[in-house]
Amino acid sequence: MARVGTRPENRHQARLLRLLRDSGPQSRAELGDAVELSKSKVAIEVERLADLGFVDVVGLAASRGGRRSQMVALSRNLRFVGIDIGATSIDVAVLDGELNLLGQDRADTDVRRGPGPVLEQVIDLVAKLRVGRGEPVTGVGVGVPGPVSQAEGALVAPPIMPGWSHFPIRDMLGAALGAPVMMDNDVNVMALGELHSGTARSVRDLLFVKIGTGIGCGIVVGGEIYRGVNGSAGDIGHIQVDGHGHVCACGNTGCLEAAFGGAALARDAEAAARSGRSDWLAERLASSNVLSARDIGAAADAGDPVSIGLVRDGGNRLGKVLASLVSFFNPGLVVIGGGVAGLGHPLLAEIRSVVYRRSLPLATGNLPIVLSELGGTAGVVGAGRLISDSVFATT
Amino acid sequence: MARVGTRPENRHQARLLRLLRDSGPQSRAELGDAVELSKSKVAIEVERLADLGFVDVVGLAASRGGRRSQMVALSRNLRFVGIDIGATSIDVAVLDGELNLLGQDRADTDVRRGPGPVLEQVIDLVAKLRVGRGEPVTGVGVGVPGPVSQAEGALVAPPIMPGWSHFPIRDMLGAALGAPVMMDNDVNVMALGELHSGTARSVRDLLFVKIGTGIGCGIVVGGEIYRGVNGSAGDIGHIQVDGHGHVCACGNTGCLEAAFGGAALARDAEAAARSGRSDWLAERLASSNVLSARDIGAAADAGDPVSIGLVRDGGNRLGKVLASLVSFFNPGLVVIGGGVAGLGHPLLAEIRSVVYRRSLPLATGNLPIVLSELGGTAGVVGAGRLISDSVFATT
Repeated sequence: MARVGTRPENRHQARLLRLLRDSGPQSRAELGDAVELSKSKVAIEVERLADLGFVDVVGLAASRGGRRSQMVALSRNLRFVGIDIGATSIDVAVLDGELNLLGQDRADTDVRRGPGPVLEQVIDLVAKLRVGRGEPVTGVGVGVPGPVSQAEGALVAPPIMPGWSHFPIRDMLGAALGAPVMMDNDVNVMALGELHSGTARSVRDLLFVKIGTGIGCGIVVGGEIYRGVNGSAGDIGHIQVDGHGHVCACGNTGCLEAAFGGAALARDAEAAARSGRSDWLAERLASSNVLSARDIGAAADAGDPVSIGLVRDGGNRLGKVLASLVSFFNPGLVVIGGGVAGLGHPLLAEIRSVVYRRSLPLATGNLPIVLSELGGTAGVVGAGRLISDSVFATT
Repeated sequence: MARVGTRPENRHQARLLRLLRDSGPQSRAELGDAVELSKSKVAIEVERLADLGFVDVVGLAASRGGRRSQMVALSRNLRFVGIDIGATSIDVAVLDGELNLLGQDRADTDVRRGPGPVLEQVIDLVAKLRVGRGEPVTGVGVGVPGPVSQAEGALVAPPIMPGWSHFPIRDMLGAALGAPVMMDNDVNVMALGELHSGTARSVRDLLFVKIGTGIGCGIVVGGEIYRGVNGSAGDIGHIQVDGHGHVCACGNTGCLEAAFGGAALARDAEAAARSGRSDWLAERLASSNVLSARDIGAAADAGDPVSIGLVRDGGNRLGKVLASLVSFFNPGLVVIGGGVAGLGHPLLAEIRSVVYRRSLPLATGNLPIVLSELGGTAGVVGAGRLISDSVFATT
């Protein structure tokens, strides 16, 4: 069993581990072909990885003509924990070395309660999931809804999380769970999840757009998350879409996030209900006292013209921003996820129409724009991918 | 002397060649440290590179305590040719292995004459530059003002170059000059020039914005040009900046390029002259029959309020687009180049003011926005860098 903190000894071993994670069990001969090592060298590296507890030899492969080659798989004892902390919920999953889900759980929370109580909830959830399972944790990945300093292992001035700035999340969870921890913002983590097991699996350059309470973008270049020089790449929520628009929490006017996104949609829905423009929303507000993006989705499905207008208008604004980014970045795929993506195909239709009309033909000639298929699991799988990328590397 | 078409035999040799190109002559001991090879291995690779004609041993280094190490330099016989084809001019340079300029020349042209006559002019310019120099050409880099298919070695549907689409520029120049040829669009080539010997030398993630007749952006990620999945990344000239703006050559309305850029500025200057709004521009038009971006620069310098307004307005529009891209991409540097960059500091001041106001503080906290220092040589040096990256690689 791999001891906590064990790392591969060289880059061949690191490549073999990632290959086994992404493509499943393989024969030594196949592994040798894939990493361009001789038979004898691959045998040495596999033996070292078995000694370190990273892999198991699981039998003999079918013959390729000569002697049958040994089948190699990631150790059944590897256990990654994926944690996705949202503004109002916590998702936790236990994953094996190939990042298959072994178990998951979810709890409501409120990040405004501060890091102490919320991280205690996280640790309880992990403990509950692991009841009866004896294996130590190989590594922990965490997604958080705000800007992350990788060097510090902490959030830096997250707008919606009072008390969290510079709180040592990585060190605190590492001590509590006895394993190495990697963290990143929720959007990058979800993009990694899409890359690992979603629509994006075979794509190397893509954009993952999350429309939740706020709006953000994960950028994948050459199969890796691109973070920019200060880690703020993909922060598209404050791009100006309207010179005379709503004042945003950031202090500027007309930001994308102030026009669209969960909080903005809830605001517009309540205004439409109170002003009498939408009977449908007024009834819903009277019965539940609060409206959300989900209510707009339901109202639009029911044919409420005000709600259909809000979805179209939001899709149009987001589409214009995406059209610019598509011209600039020329991605191979755009994936739309996050809670507001639940508005579904009417939203997608509007976004597509604007992007295909406004971006250059060369950039949109073969550009799928799709809804995330993973939904809620993108975050925990991506968090597992984040920490496994780190554990399956030499340094 | 390296024979034409010779390549390094392995990735160690390729790294040694790029290191000698970018950092100049070094001792075998320093080279071994830099590429993490043992003394005996680095000695073998250097000897092979000398046999292939890529490097010379040029004496002994100062002692580091033990035996003095041999100094190694790129062969003095390496000759790269950099070619920068613009809409109305051709720049050609001969460069040594370290991409120092050995000679350069420039001629007026008109790409609308078609590929035959223009490439003949290019070949004549190269021949003239190389009169009396016996060395064969190691490789040729070419920048062209339109979208390039690297696979084809040709332009694909370049809007301002009738007759050029799919013309086999790479093969034609390769046959005429007897050397391998690499080509890319002018903006990417200029970005490579900035990366090699401009302000961007030490920066790994940056944007190079060219404002010429049109507007484009070179994107550098991790020290390499990012081209996107279809090679169209950086095509920012057709991002919409004004829903009710001018109709663009691309068929859409309100594109950045239709509002700003050399052609748009000339159009606005002539309109201001003819309508009597600017006496300064009217006089200039009367004397020269045509106005260009340069005239607006001169008029703004002389205090003409209409011209100052055009520069500010253009800088404002470009600044808004850049603000979005800076939030999205979080670069470490933005370099502004191309002919219209000659409008200089009033333009730069306006761009800076919009970007610093509209992008997130995290993305602009340490973001220099500067004018290109290389000016006209960025293209030919970048073309040399493009082909040397290819010749100094294993495949």
